[in-house]
Amino acid sequence: MQKGKASLVFERPAYLAATASVAGQKEGEGPLAGGIDRIEPDPMFGAENWEQAESAMQKQTADLALEKGHIHRRDVRYLFAGDLLGQLIATSFGTVDLEIPLFGLYGACSTMGEALSLGAMCVDGGHADLVLAMASSHYATAEKQFRFPLAYGNQRSQSAAWTVTGCGAAVLSSKRPAGMSVRIAAVTTGRMVDLGVRDAMNMGAAMAPAAWDTIWQNFLDLGVDADYYDRIITGDLGDTGQKILLDFAREKGQDLSGKHMDCGLEIYDRKTQDVHAGGSGCGCSAVTLCAMILPRLLRGDWKRVLFLPTGALLSGMSSNEGQSIPGIAHAVVLERCDDSVKG
Amino acid sequence: MQKGKASLVFERPAYLAATASVAGQKEGEGPLAGGIDRIEPDPMFGAENWEQAESAMQKQTADLALEKGHIHRRDVRYLFAGDLLGQLIATSFGTVDLEIPLFGLYGACSTMGEALSLGAMCVDGGHADLVLAMASSHYATAEKQFRFPLAYGNQRSQSAAWTVTGCGAAVLSSKRPAGMSVRIAAVTTGRMVDLGVRDAMNMGAAMAPAAWDTIWQNFLDLGVDADYYDRIITGDLGDTGQKILLDFAREKGQDLSGKHMDCGLEIYDRKTQDVHAGGSGCGCSAVTLCAMILPRLLRGDWKRVLFLPTGALLSGMSSNEGQSIPGIAHAVVLERCDDSVKG
Repeated sequence: MQKGKASLVFERPAYLAATASVAGQKEGEGPLAGGIDRIEPDPMFGAENWEQAESAMQKQTADLALEKGHIHRRDVRYLFAGDLLGQLIATSFGTVDLEIPLFGLYGACSTMGEALSLGAMCVDGGHADLVLAMASSHYATAEKQFRFPLAYGNQRSQSAAWTVTGCGAAVLSSKRPAGMSVRIAAVTTGRMVDLGVRDAMNMGAAMAPAAWDTIWQNFLDLGVDADYYDRIITGDLGDTGQKILLDFAREKGQDLSGKHMDCGLEIYDRKTQDVHAGGSGCGCSAVTLCAMILPRLLRGDWKRVLFLPTGALLSGMSSNEGQSIPGIAHAVVLERCDDSVKG
Repeated sequence: MQKGKASLVFERPAYLAATASVAGQKEGEGPLAGGIDRIEPDPMFGAENWEQAESAMQKQTADLALEKGHIHRRDVRYLFAGDLLGQLIATSFGTVDLEIPLFGLYGACSTMGEALSLGAMCVDGGHADLVLAMASSHYATAEKQFRFPLAYGNQRSQSAAWTVTGCGAAVLSSKRPAGMSVRIAAVTTGRMVDLGVRDAMNMGAAMAPAAWDTIWQNFLDLGVDADYYDRIITGDLGDTGQKILLDFAREKGQDLSGKHMDCGLEIYDRKTQDVHAGGSGCGCSAVTLCAMILPRLLRGDWKRVLFLPTGALLSGMSSNEGQSIPGIAHAVVLERCDDSVKG
């Protein structure tokens, strides 16, 4: 059902039937290690170059999610997937063997939010019973794509984030699983917000206004406030972006300080792991979703979470040409439900 | 309603309420000139660089489609859009001022098929009453992105296509317009098909197997054959790809020779315009849809068309790394309907 300007509340919500996460060594040394399904010590994932490494990681993650859910790939109707690379090559080469009809998505680091939203819309609309949503990033491909080759060993500013080597995949199902489960109750689709930030080493600042725009739109559309959620979890604002987000919220009289978490601040231990502002990349929110947010919802720590991956819509070329960095954030409302309890 | 493995037949079909096309001078000298809404003689579209030129073209096209349909941008619920550039920068910078919630798509030159499919699914699912679907390409940005800087003046092989400078936009509506109109009756979503073609100067050969895969899936899912359609129109197979497609069809006992058209073969006059295999790019099928296919449907030349933009999922990097070129094609069934006649 359409709610307000940019939200949908689902009558036939999609359930997260199975999820998987695969990540690199650095992520495997961080706080989420226990929740990540597979930690791969070889950053090349056995492949010949970084791009193929990211593709191999996507393939592993998709296969693992299907395996965990005892689902055959032929029964999955659509794949919604993306990555950060030009022309989505990590996705194209990573998922070709799945032979699942593909909708390729680009929402920068918001891609997991975009994939979950469209997947849930498909299920609600009766267009699919099983959908796979997936997003990945790789530290080495992202540095090569957006910044400098690793071999330069360049200095990084304190506001820069560290791109997560990781992939998260979720199978969405129209069928409610037995026992405790998590469903996508609603979504709020982000629009681009450009306040003129031009510093590609401070993407948190570029994305925070978009994150707030989507959160505020969600509050307006659903007629709720921060109290409606146990947590509001952004993708990769990092330390710098989080401060800006909390300021924006305060200007509207909303105190998010007790509610807000950021996947970029959860995935690494910033005291010991030298990641500066935090983690980033499509994989950051996708892995954190599968390795921490869903387990905590299922465990009963939280009942309802607003999960909103955040993206910075720049390219190496747009930066070189002096363009600003528009941000975007796509929110999904994750709710725990128990089939032994009504609702 | 789900049909077969990869198709949907819509109970609440989306109508193409308004469309617009903007293209460059070369396209304006071709056979579709009379149908293109605006022909821009300045390849820079008044901007400072090629990428911003493509963004300006997207903005012009979106504005024009809304203007032609007497629709305010605030009434459009979602924008589904994409282009060929790394990280979709033509779309990001072209559409930020529209302030419409955005789903960024990458399907290479199949993007208009992807956008129309997802837009129609939104309308059918009750998730939106008005959606904007748009795709663009620009000769100069594509050459820079995928091949060589224009200033090199390099030779092109005869199997290479010429990237269209053009943008097409369509407003999809849940409301049936008065009089003659065109609706999206069904869609068939493509999967990646990779037969190992590695020649980036012969993308027709890379995409033809994917085009046939989607056409054949459409026939199977809907229980029809080529006779069901007045025309089957691919995106940008060009001369080389068309021959391969017809061969694939013949192997399955299907004769497409009287039915098949290709936007890349329609948009230029290959005898006089020196485009080698034909036109290509997201803009090729998007402009041909708005400037020729829809007008001919509305005029009564055709009743039902299978329109399937075709994409080659490569990047400059994947080519340099010796990867093959998977293809993909997303089909939409366009049907003329007349509100004075039942059905």
